Amino acid sequence: MLRTYRVARASGLPTAPPTLTLTSTTATRHLFTLPKSLQLRRPEKLSLISQRQLSGRPLPRTQSRLLNFGYRTAAWFGSSIAFVGLSFVAFFLYDASTYSSHATNQGDITVPKLALNPRRGGPKNLPILEIFLDDDDSEEKKKHKEKPRLVILGGGWGSVALLKELNPDDYHVTVVSPANYFLFTPMLPSATVGTLELKSLVEPIRNIIDRVKGHYVRAAAEDVDFSSRLVEVSQKDPRGNEVRFYVPYDKLVIAVGSTTNPHGVKGLENCHFLKDINDARQIRNKIIQNLELSCLPTTSDEERKRLLSFVVCGGGPTGVEFAAELFDLLNEDLTLHFPRLLRNEISVHLIQSRDHILNTYDEAVSKYAEDRFSRDQVDVLVNSRVAEVRPESILFTQLGPDGKTTVTKELPMGFCLWSTGVSQAEFCKRISRQLGPAQTNRHALETDTHLRLNGTPLGDVYAIGDCSTIQNNVADHIITFLRNLAWKHGKDPESLELHFSDWRDVAQQIKKRFPQATAHLKRLDKLFEEYDKDQNGTLDFGELRELLKQIDSKLTSLPATAQRAHQQGQYLAHKFNKLARAAPGLSANEIHEGDLDAAVYKAFEYRHLGSLAYIGNSAVFDWGDGWNFSGGLWAVYAWRSIYFTQSVSLRTRVLMAMDWGKRALFGRDLMSY
Amino acid sequence: MLRTYRVARASGLPTAPPTLTLTSTTATRHLFTLPKSLQLRRPEKLSLISQRQLSGRPLPRTQSRLLNFGYRTAAWFGSSIAFVGLSFVAFFLYDASTYSSHATNQGDITVPKLALNPRRGGPKNLPILEIFLDDDDSEEKKKHKEKPRLVILGGGWGSVALLKELNPDDYHVTVVSPANYFLFTPMLPSATVGTLELKSLVEPIRNIIDRVKGHYVRAAAEDVDFSSRLVEVSQKDPRGNEVRFYVPYDKLVIAVGSTTNPHGVKGLENCHFLKDINDARQIRNKIIQNLELSCLPTTSDEERKRLLSFVVCGGGPTGVEFAAELFDLLNEDLTLHFPRLLRNEISVHLIQSRDHILNTYDEAVSKYAEDRFSRDQVDVLVNSRVAEVRPESILFTQLGPDGKTTVTKELPMGFCLWSTGVSQAEFCKRISRQLGPAQTNRHALETDTHLRLNGTPLGDVYAIGDCSTIQNNVADHIITFLRNLAWKHGKDPESLELHFSDWRDVAQQIKKRFPQATAHLKRLDKLFEEYDKDQNGTLDFGELRELLKQIDSKLTSLPATAQRAHQQGQYLAHKFNKLARAAPGLSANEIHEGDLDAAVYKAFEYRHLGSLAYIGNSAVFDWGDGWNFSGGLWAVYAWRSIYFTQSVSLRTRVLMAMDWGKRALFGRDLMSY
Repeated sequence: MLRTYRVARASGLPTAPPTLTLTSTTATRHLFTLPKSLQLRRPEKLSLISQRQLSGRPLPRTQSRLLNFGYRTAAWFGSSIAFVGLSFVAFFLYDASTYSSHATNQGDITVPKLALNPRRGGPKNLPILEIFLDDDDSEEKKKHKEKPRLVILGGGWGSVALLKELNPDDYHVTVVSPANYFLFTPMLPSATVGTLELKSLVEPIRNIIDRVKGHYVRAAAEDVDFSSRLVEVSQKDPRGNEVRFYVPYDKLVIAVGSTTNPHGVKGLENCHFLKDINDARQIRNKIIQNLELSCLPTTSDEERKRLLSFVVCGGGPTGVEFAAELFDLLNEDLTLHFPRLLRNEISVHLIQSRDHILNTYDEAVSKYAEDRFSRDQVDVLVNSRVAEVRPESILFTQLGPDGKTTVTKELPMGFCLWSTGVSQAEFCKRISRQLGPAQTNRHALETDTHLRLNGTPLGDVYAIGDCSTIQNNVADHIITFLRNLAWKHGKDPESLELHFSDWRDVAQQIKKRFPQATAHLKRLDKLFEEYDKDQNGTLDFGELRELLKQIDSKLTSLPATAQRAHQQGQYLAHKFNKLARAAPGLSANEIHEGDLDAAVYKAFEYRHLGSLAYIGNSAVFDWGDGWNFSGGLWAVYAWRSIYFTQSVSLRTRVLMAMDWGKRALFGRDLMSY
Repeated sequence: MLRTYRVARASGLPTAPPTLTLTSTTATRHLFTLPKSLQLRRPEKLSLISQRQLSGRPLPRTQSRLLNFGYRTAAWFGSSIAFVGLSFVAFFLYDASTYSSHATNQGDITVPKLALNPRRGGPKNLPILEIFLDDDDSEEKKKHKEKPRLVILGGGWGSVALLKELNPDDYHVTVVSPANYFLFTPMLPSATVGTLELKSLVEPIRNIIDRVKGHYVRAAAEDVDFSSRLVEVSQKDPRGNEVRFYVPYDKLVIAVGSTTNPHGVKGLENCHFLKDINDARQIRNKIIQNLELSCLPTTSDEERKRLLSFVVCGGGPTGVEFAAELFDLLNEDLTLHFPRLLRNEISVHLIQSRDHILNTYDEAVSKYAEDRFSRDQVDVLVNSRVAEVRPESILFTQLGPDGKTTVTKELPMGFCLWSTGVSQAEFCKRISRQLGPAQTNRHALETDTHLRLNGTPLGDVYAIGDCSTIQNNVADHIITFLRNLAWKHGKDPESLELHFSDWRDVAQQIKKRFPQATAHLKRLDKLFEEYDKDQNGTLDFGELRELLKQIDSKLTSLPATAQRAHQQGQYLAHKFNKLARAAPGLSANEIHEGDLDAAVYKAFEYRHLGSLAYIGNSAVFDWGDGWNFSGGLWAVYAWRSIYFTQSVSLRTRVLMAMDWGKRALFGRDLMSY
């Protein structure tokens, strides 16, 4: 700028109309001495001062670089402060508006009589929850009374995904669950050591239900009467006695999840589990308690070592993440406040029955996790099966390096986490028994590919999430289909011969009905060639059956993950929305029976979006098909970002962000209460 | 500005040297057309663009108000965003620096042998905690081994105030407490309904102790052997068996607090209390549980009314604040998610034995609170004494309006909070019995005005906070003092005659020794006149005794508040600091006995800084002496500010601020876990 200025003067350019800039700085005042008559009076002075504020007047102008720099910096800094300050004021104003200082005067409210004194009925003559206390609370709710009753059992990933996608106006929704919150399970290991607060992982289920103007019943499902469409639920009354009543449904979604798998091991009462929010709190208290006991003079050396021996049974994501979070706590926070001796005496052990931890992940990923753990002095014991958990030690058998002989070892322990997979809940076992031969799986409720519970009236009952599995009966189904087709055309199915084009049609049919089989139907020509044993260019009935059976054997059941439950919940929501839209047309045509689900919507197809795990200041990602990566701190931030976006509400997102900030500022809190 | 400009031109003032401003805006480019040879080449253009950034170059200059305004606004807005963005980046960089990804390699650590295998001894031959596991952990801690051992029993207000003011280098400090956190008790009612998080009210005691490089022992004090200077403490070992050991001391501070006062009422097992953090959680869960039960179809109308009847026994600050917070929860959050019927059926009752709530406050304040409550439909029952708490109802006797007859009433209740004052802890009762006649108060440990426990060797044991009271024995003390003085001078004390100037000296003596009496010694002349019964211008011994006894009777014991405990803790810290500084001189002069406390520091004087209470979207303040005020939301903000500044650490302050923000954004969470 200085140079430009010199050029302009030297060349005698036509100058701009002379302007006089008056500022209130003393520097400029000394340059120009105005005749007394022209010196500024009060009003002008004021206007000169105001020039520095947000206005349309020309900017002040001095030749001094220092002053200009000062002006800019001050403006930059000052305005930033003003910005923050204004935000504060705005927040306080908002805050003030959220207090309701007067008692809410509700005027008269109407409560349906049947809600106050419910009718009794059903096979056990129990009260039936037909009308709710708040069914008349608003115009919207009144309208819902006439809608089909959708009852959802459980408040986990599947239910919440369903609730978040369902059209708010189509169903009278009731959620039955013993817990009045949704728990963001993938972050549970973080909550055990205080990286995240318990509260940041839970969202009141009522907040989620509000979207569809639904109802919440705090109770546990006990049984279902499929013929009279009643769910029997139980709850403890104020005196602790069990009371039971019925919740009627038109559509029922079973999403009750699973329980811990004991694997038939003795002494699990000496273990902690990590299924819900109370487990996390108990674990946190136990860890702190052990640390405190280790400091007492009455604790012997040997006892101290035992108290500080933390054992995790199960090398899946939960076990691995817990071990990692525990290591973080002990490594980052413990040494600050506890005697250094404790850090030396602490040991973390991870017992895994397979030959690798994270064995459902890509091999590179599980290798990375093992390396990381071995560097962090987390003792990974693979090929080991727990035989018994004793109050102060754990017995396990380990396969020797020869892969044949097993040795039994005893590990002293002060804390044991049991996280070795899932098992069927008691309610599901009862349902399964009731449905008899329609349910053949001992571990989960079987559904068809439209997620309808096998053995129940079509379109009445659905099962999603951990408690369910999709039956892989491609062969049976297609064979029956073809058999019927053949008989219809007056042919003997055994004499059926499929040409390649017929086979292509059948494959198309399979893909539509069993999306999970798609991956195994990629090279139709090769399959045809392989199973056309007699090389006659056609598949006969026996050959086709062999082919289909081989596909069946390749289909594995879906993983018991949040991701699966979430997709299934969303799938049901979309289907229910479609069904509601199709309802007027169907009833006009008097169609009430038949495979309505298949008519309005496609079968469920699972898309694996990848798995991830936190492994102690680093994280691993496995997108499937060999795509995977692992990394340090940046991967941790990526891992957090993914869960941050998947979190259930703005509320939990804000709380999670606050928690991470708190950890950075103040560390984890080593308190138990 | 425009006007100024015109004035300058019209008067033909000496103009400023003509300047040319080149900017890159098209507006100015059209005003001046430069000869081609002078048109700017690339480097200048770049420098012109960079002119807009933070630099020392002159600010751009145009005549257009709009452009100038735009420039300023953009700068203002843009820089604010940049400020926020930079803060984010800075925080992430800081966050990244807080992870320690490598296992802390500690190398060799030395642990004193005596810490691993403590010596046994004392009257019960228990292990003695002479050396700690971390006594050799750092150079600073090693130095502390030689310092006098200061043992503090309890981790409440008194202890923490002491720890925060104590010089870090003078004592080997040990804190013994069953809870490993300090609880910010005044905000506890807020935590019961989720306005604040439990975690925001607690600070790990180890964080506080770290300042003085002290030690924490998680155990409960059971007894003290004053002759061998050993505190007997107990703790449960990992198997749940009680173990006991000794903690030796040179100076002992008893600050164990108090327990709930049962007032001899039957059925308190049906009540909730509000003393610690678990109480707050239990209360929260109980409230939510009652709300959930009220929604069930199996709950009758009558039962619902009972479940929603919340009773608070005790009209002191805790009871009042809890009732207020409960009302807030029910009024602000309940109606959003629960059937409207519930809001109609809810009732909150406050049972107070006196004729006003907040009866220790100014009358105007307690009137304001009562008005507020009556408007909020909180049912205040004054002059009522609880007779019995039954599982589902509460029996109380109420004084009739005639002030004589009492009627017994029964109130159905679903929840009862018992907050009717404090009582002596078991440990203090044991100490008191042991010290025999030196302890005459049945409700608290008696100390002298230097806070030394009466009956123990001078300068060994102190008692502060709720568990203690300062003995008001002005008369006894002064009479003994004068008696000794008289005998020393060979006079018979009974024949002593005090002139007004002697009386003034005695009063001075009293004020120094019993600061709490100062308020009653303001008009010395009037007192002299009043008690000089024979009007002879002198006080004889009998007259003086009468005068002092009357002063004694006016002195009340200090309130059992956080404020008192805090001041006493600070007082002890200042005294201990002085004693440590005086120690070298005293030992050089071989002074080990005598009233060292009185020699180095003044007696304890309580200064009442006022009381405050939250009463539901409004707050009351009572500064004493008739100074008080009450108000709405602005008073609530003031109330919060006061507690915010008094909070124990930056951590709790940040968490509290976050909690208030959360409440504004997302409301309170109606979840129980």
